[in-house]
Amino acid sequence: MIKWVPRGVCAPDGFQAGGISCGIKKEGQKDLALVMCEDDICNVAAMFTTNSIVGQPVKISRERVKGGYARAILINSGNANCCTGDEGYKAALNISKKLARLIYDEEKHILLASTGVIGVPFPEKKVLDALPALVENTDTVGHTSAAMAIMTTDTFSKEAAVVVNTPKGKITIGGMAKGAGMIFPHMATMICVLTTDASISTPLLKSALKEAVSISFNRISVDGDMSTNDSVFLLANGRGIHIKSRQSAEYKAFLEGLKAVCLRLAEMIVRDGEGATRFVKITVEGASSQDEAIKVAEKVATSALFKCSVFGGKVIWGRIAAAVGAASKKVDEKKLEIVANRHTVFKRGKTMFTRSKALLIDKDLHVIINLHSGKYSYYMFTCDFSPNYVLINKE
Amino acid sequence: MIKWVPRGVCAPDGFQAGGISCGIKKEGQKDLALVMCEDDICNVAAMFTTNSIVGQPVKISRERVKGGYARAILINSGNANCCTGDEGYKAALNISKKLARLIYDEEKHILLASTGVIGVPFPEKKVLDALPALVENTDTVGHTSAAMAIMTTDTFSKEAAVVVNTPKGKITIGGMAKGAGMIFPHMATMICVLTTDASISTPLLKSALKEAVSISFNRISVDGDMSTNDSVFLLANGRGIHIKSRQSAEYKAFLEGLKAVCLRLAEMIVRDGEGATRFVKITVEGASSQDEAIKVAEKVATSALFKCSVFGGKVIWGRIAAAVGAASKKVDEKKLEIVANRHTVFKRGKTMFTRSKALLIDKDLHVIINLHSGKYSYYMFTCDFSPNYVLINKE
Repeated sequence: MIKWVPRGVCAPDGFQAGGISCGIKKEGQKDLALVMCEDDICNVAAMFTTNSIVGQPVKISRERVKGGYARAILINSGNANCCTGDEGYKAALNISKKLARLIYDEEKHILLASTGVIGVPFPEKKVLDALPALVENTDTVGHTSAAMAIMTTDTFSKEAAVVVNTPKGKITIGGMAKGAGMIFPHMATMICVLTTDASISTPLLKSALKEAVSISFNRISVDGDMSTNDSVFLLANGRGIHIKSRQSAEYKAFLEGLKAVCLRLAEMIVRDGEGATRFVKITVEGASSQDEAIKVAEKVATSALFKCSVFGGKVIWGRIAAAVGAASKKVDEKKLEIVANRHTVFKRGKTMFTRSKALLIDKDLHVIINLHSGKYSYYMFTCDFSPNYVLINKE
Repeated sequence: MIKWVPRGVCAPDGFQAGGISCGIKKEGQKDLALVMCEDDICNVAAMFTTNSIVGQPVKISRERVKGGYARAILINSGNANCCTGDEGYKAALNISKKLARLIYDEEKHILLASTGVIGVPFPEKKVLDALPALVENTDTVGHTSAAMAIMTTDTFSKEAAVVVNTPKGKITIGGMAKGAGMIFPHMATMICVLTTDASISTPLLKSALKEAVSISFNRISVDGDMSTNDSVFLLANGRGIHIKSRQSAEYKAFLEGLKAVCLRLAEMIVRDGEGATRFVKITVEGASSQDEAIKVAEKVATSALFKCSVFGGKVIWGRIAAAVGAASKKVDEKKLEIVANRHTVFKRGKTMFTRSKALLIDKDLHVIINLHSGKYSYYMFTCDFSPNYVLINKE
């Protein structure tokens, strides 16, 4: 049983968060966030972008996470500190050194993330000067301030938290995320911080995070682009229930809760895609291999033509069929079946609708593509493509 | 030496063309085109979409081209005759049968192509009824009528023709094409007819076509989508110079001319991309393999974020770097060099420009991406992404 609760990353006992403005963004908007554990070192698992060009904070966090422990995560928005050369790397190191001193911990326990424009020199001094005030403003109710401070072109802050029951007692899992543009499988320009009070080993924590990300953040696409700075962090402070093994009821409950939080945050990211007006789920069924199912789902979810028609409020299923055929060499037109919001629009090589009777959609769209040639399936979340996307991204 | 000449597909001696309205499109717009050889059977080479869902005419033409000979190519716009079931297939057969009778030839020498909406029942009767008038209106000056009749969302007709000199005399090559949306490598929703008076065997003709397509139509991208109906045809009527072998000076001159015609038509297609306001060439150099060069060029040419910034008139090179890193796991940020319209914008891990000094572009943009890690290179043509693209494609 999963129970949704408030307070985001501060939901599990022992976590604090805060967000302030340090002057990177304009007009006093929050742009610097801290999530930390009050006084425990946490076990940590993390996943990063697979882009071969990465932000400086990714280089640092990727190394530190290997140690298995962390205490705090510092995130700024407005500047990605990417392609900033040695100066940008040194700036990130200086910032983590100062934060470590302020919270009386070691540098290696500080993780970093940045999101924003690429290639602009990093405003090191602004962040350094703001750190004391940020630590001062970090407390058990600062979760929304933190979630707001990591936003870039997001239009709303994204938080979720659950409590799951286990035979031994409750486990709480909290999270916050930012997304918006440039979202594509493998977590493009997506930053997410997850917290839990579970007592769980680093290998188990890693395994749970990998599984939860694979069914959530790795299945969302806004524009097919992939960022340099994606990071997902999961901190476990061990104050609560102990999870002994992968086979235990506690692990299963924890994993279920973690998946729920990640799915909810992933859905929020898609709903808040740049210029998005409609939420779309693409389900592929009956594929002859897992690879075929994934390729078909990804091709449809990133088809600009299909996404434009969804913006227009219509299911132009011919564009879905064209994308399906482009994605896999093995599609049989006579077996292909396409169902949109419970209406069968294509079956046995022809349509049930003609253009004059196009299926209109209200807000959300669920397309089921059945290849009828095997047992593999996959799903993805995406959104429509609107003129606003272009206007947001032309500068 | 290549000399550009007028008259498109009618430029080589012996070819006729025509285009009329048969009522598929609205308001009397031309929608039915014929290109044929006056009274000779031609050697033919052709290439088709690699989509596994294909239009009915593609199924028929693909088979007939295997015979090596063709006399006429009939093309309609406004309806792709794709996903139309057995009725659509039979309609295409009936149409080619009637055309064969009208021009006193065999059905197997008639090739077909269609472009337009997918899945709408094919208006067989309209085409059948219009065939006599079409044949009547096909002559040595009908090339532009034909080029207009194959347009869909194209805003201008696309024709090109050259004369090349060989030691034995002149060879003429003519062509017409349509493109606009859904353009991606492997010739998405692209139809092209090429004609020549060369006397050349089918194997040599195929080889030349493959090479010319690989450096032109397979390197253009408008929106990353791939169509069900792409077809490129090349007819050689043998009235002129004989091309003996691949090593001959005649073959080299012919290939050079064919490439020039294909490149010119490909460039026209990109310039007329749906909603396009700017033409973009992406050149990748110094890649460690041909595959890496192609992947990087394709990723940048299809990056929605990059293309939006080009619409905005700015080179936001960070988006180029992010796309490069996403395309290849082996990119070294410190070696990467990006040059835009002769300005070096990124080198040695950092930029020469900041956002406040973004490189402004006037109309065309040429981006050179040097990975400095090998000897392989590749180029692609694309265009920007405008709000108009979405508005054109929402219905």
